[in-house]
Amino acid sequence: MRATTIHAPYDMRVEDVPDAAVVRPTDAVVRVLRACICGSDLWAYRGEAARQAGQRIGHEFLGIVEETGSEVSVFKRGDLVVAPFMWSDGVCDYCREGLTTSCEHGGFWGAVGHDGGQGEAVRVPYADGTLVALPADAASDERLLSALLTLSDVLGTGHHAALGAGVRKGATVAVVGDGAVGLCGVLAAHRLGAERIIALGRHQVRTDIARSFGATDVVAERGEAAVAAVRELTGGQGAHAVIEAVGTEQSMNTAVNITRDGGAIGFVGVPHGSGSGVDLRVMFDHNIALRGGVAPVRTYIPELLPDVLDGTIDPSPVFDMTVDIEGVPGGYKAMDERVALKVMVTN
Amino acid sequence: MRATTIHAPYDMRVEDVPDAAVVRPTDAVVRVLRACICGSDLWAYRGEAARQAGQRIGHEFLGIVEETGSEVSVFKRGDLVVAPFMWSDGVCDYCREGLTTSCEHGGFWGAVGHDGGQGEAVRVPYADGTLVALPADAASDERLLSALLTLSDVLGTGHHAALGAGVRKGATVAVVGDGAVGLCGVLAAHRLGAERIIALGRHQVRTDIARSFGATDVVAERGEAAVAAVRELTGGQGAHAVIEAVGTEQSMNTAVNITRDGGAIGFVGVPHGSGSGVDLRVMFDHNIALRGGVAPVRTYIPELLPDVLDGTIDPSPVFDMTVDIEGVPGGYKAMDERVALKVMVTN
Repeated sequence: MRATTIHAPYDMRVEDVPDAAVVRPTDAVVRVLRACICGSDLWAYRGEAARQAGQRIGHEFLGIVEETGSEVSVFKRGDLVVAPFMWSDGVCDYCREGLTTSCEHGGFWGAVGHDGGQGEAVRVPYADGTLVALPADAASDERLLSALLTLSDVLGTGHHAALGAGVRKGATVAVVGDGAVGLCGVLAAHRLGAERIIALGRHQVRTDIARSFGATDVVAERGEAAVAAVRELTGGQGAHAVIEAVGTEQSMNTAVNITRDGGAIGFVGVPHGSGSGVDLRVMFDHNIALRGGVAPVRTYIPELLPDVLDGTIDPSPVFDMTVDIEGVPGGYKAMDERVALKVMVTN
Repeated sequence: MRATTIHAPYDMRVEDVPDAAVVRPTDAVVRVLRACICGSDLWAYRGEAARQAGQRIGHEFLGIVEETGSEVSVFKRGDLVVAPFMWSDGVCDYCREGLTTSCEHGGFWGAVGHDGGQGEAVRVPYADGTLVALPADAASDERLLSALLTLSDVLGTGHHAALGAGVRKGATVAVVGDGAVGLCGVLAAHRLGAERIIALGRHQVRTDIARSFGATDVVAERGEAAVAAVRELTGGQGAHAVIEAVGTEQSMNTAVNITRDGGAIGFVGVPHGSGSGVDLRVMFDHNIALRGGVAPVRTYIPELLPDVLDGTIDPSPVFDMTVDIEGVPGGYKAMDERVALKVMVTN
């Protein structure tokens, strides 16, 4: 089969690799219908996250179950399914508590020895615990397929950020980051009943999507000017709930300084850079909480899925470029150069 | 009247100062019956927190209302009252939400131009919002007075840490810090139903108090050895709820590394030192939350007071040395040298 591999920074290839196959009785093989490229994939692309030469990549996909191991009981050949960005056994302490990202047997797509989502098919460990069924007729609805694909990562991650930030009915929310996760954070905050949503971003295409997702205000400034602008919009107090969807020192620093006393930051941007940007003294004096991390999207899919299916929320506009499997390297280039917001891969 | 003043690092004096008096109609004057020295006072004592020469000090006290301004309606001369470690107006947005430490008109005892608790009397701004009434007959019960005095700071701060850490019935809790706040954190966690409480500390007098407050295990190690010990006690997982009651880079680092995935750190140690000790990547990978800060003890006193009055909890053992007002400088020396855990001042 064809699959995307990474050989060195900026060296993405699409190659023939061994067909995905059931290895353990709890495995399934899923033929990928839709996959996509994540902002966090760019850290590998840019060489800022280490990869072995030839390693697979891609952690967001949905598709059709093609084969199941003898112990797979929930799914059968032909089922339409979506995969969260990590696999999980569904039965350990953490999975039962809903923290599937801490599963004792969990792992990441594209880890050494494992298939990635940006390929024709994927061996799915712990299929019963990992996969979530989608209605079969969704396969023929292009827009809906795009929307459902966001359940594998960015929608659930935005939802995790909104929960971490303590978004509730009537809250004022600020969102740092205008990537797909930040935009899904806007959508999630709106869904949870936020009254006012301030999106920080300077790219009008993106802030237009933010507005269509429920943002009531846009702040184009950065750094201290952004802090001042959010303060001005909130009567000097800051936002009750702040979503941090970037992960740099500057973005975290901005998040800390625009949070209202007693409020919280939901952080889902993978932390990188030399410093943390977390000023503990500011957080201490103002009782600002920090909650978040890698999102247990497997747990969130059953909650979010009905709203996607009935159109209550439509995250599909985060995709603004589509490639086929052979076009994946070009998709990375487009996202790295910020020509594309998020690239979908069709098989 | 006599009051404690700080003139330079390690230069504490007890001097004649102008009598406390009502200045604004919302003021009351409280004659101090009991005050104490806080671990955070030592930062001023050691010159690590700046003070003007001659500034008053002390932020924990209870006493008798001696005089009230014309707009004070809740209290009258002769009432026994306890003061939280900050004053607050009781009516602003933040006070109504319970975050009295962010009060628009709030302030700290001993701030320039204000009386401190380590003196014979204190002018209390916003007396109706700030003070909490105690039963008159408590004044004749030495043990109870000591216990009630902890409501001004350390008991409420321990409670804030326990709430921040998400302590709930059945939880496993770890407490970093064996000072009075850490010990009150143990007491608060026990009160909130923690099943297992691991106290980190190497001073047996203190860890004995921790055990009497409800600690089920004591870890004497520090740094990586402490992390390993807590992991071993918790089946490798760490504690659901971790109370950080020190505020150094090392203590925070320990707290982050002994928290179970999906758990939280309640931090109430005033942050100091060059680094934060907060490893965001560890927090991200394991979904560890950080919540806390300066404790709104004014809000907690009404909840904690009944349990102190009926003896359900008795925090009085945190005091292991008593001085009169003239002995306050010696009390600082004893706490700085860790000869005393917490010093009470009687008037």
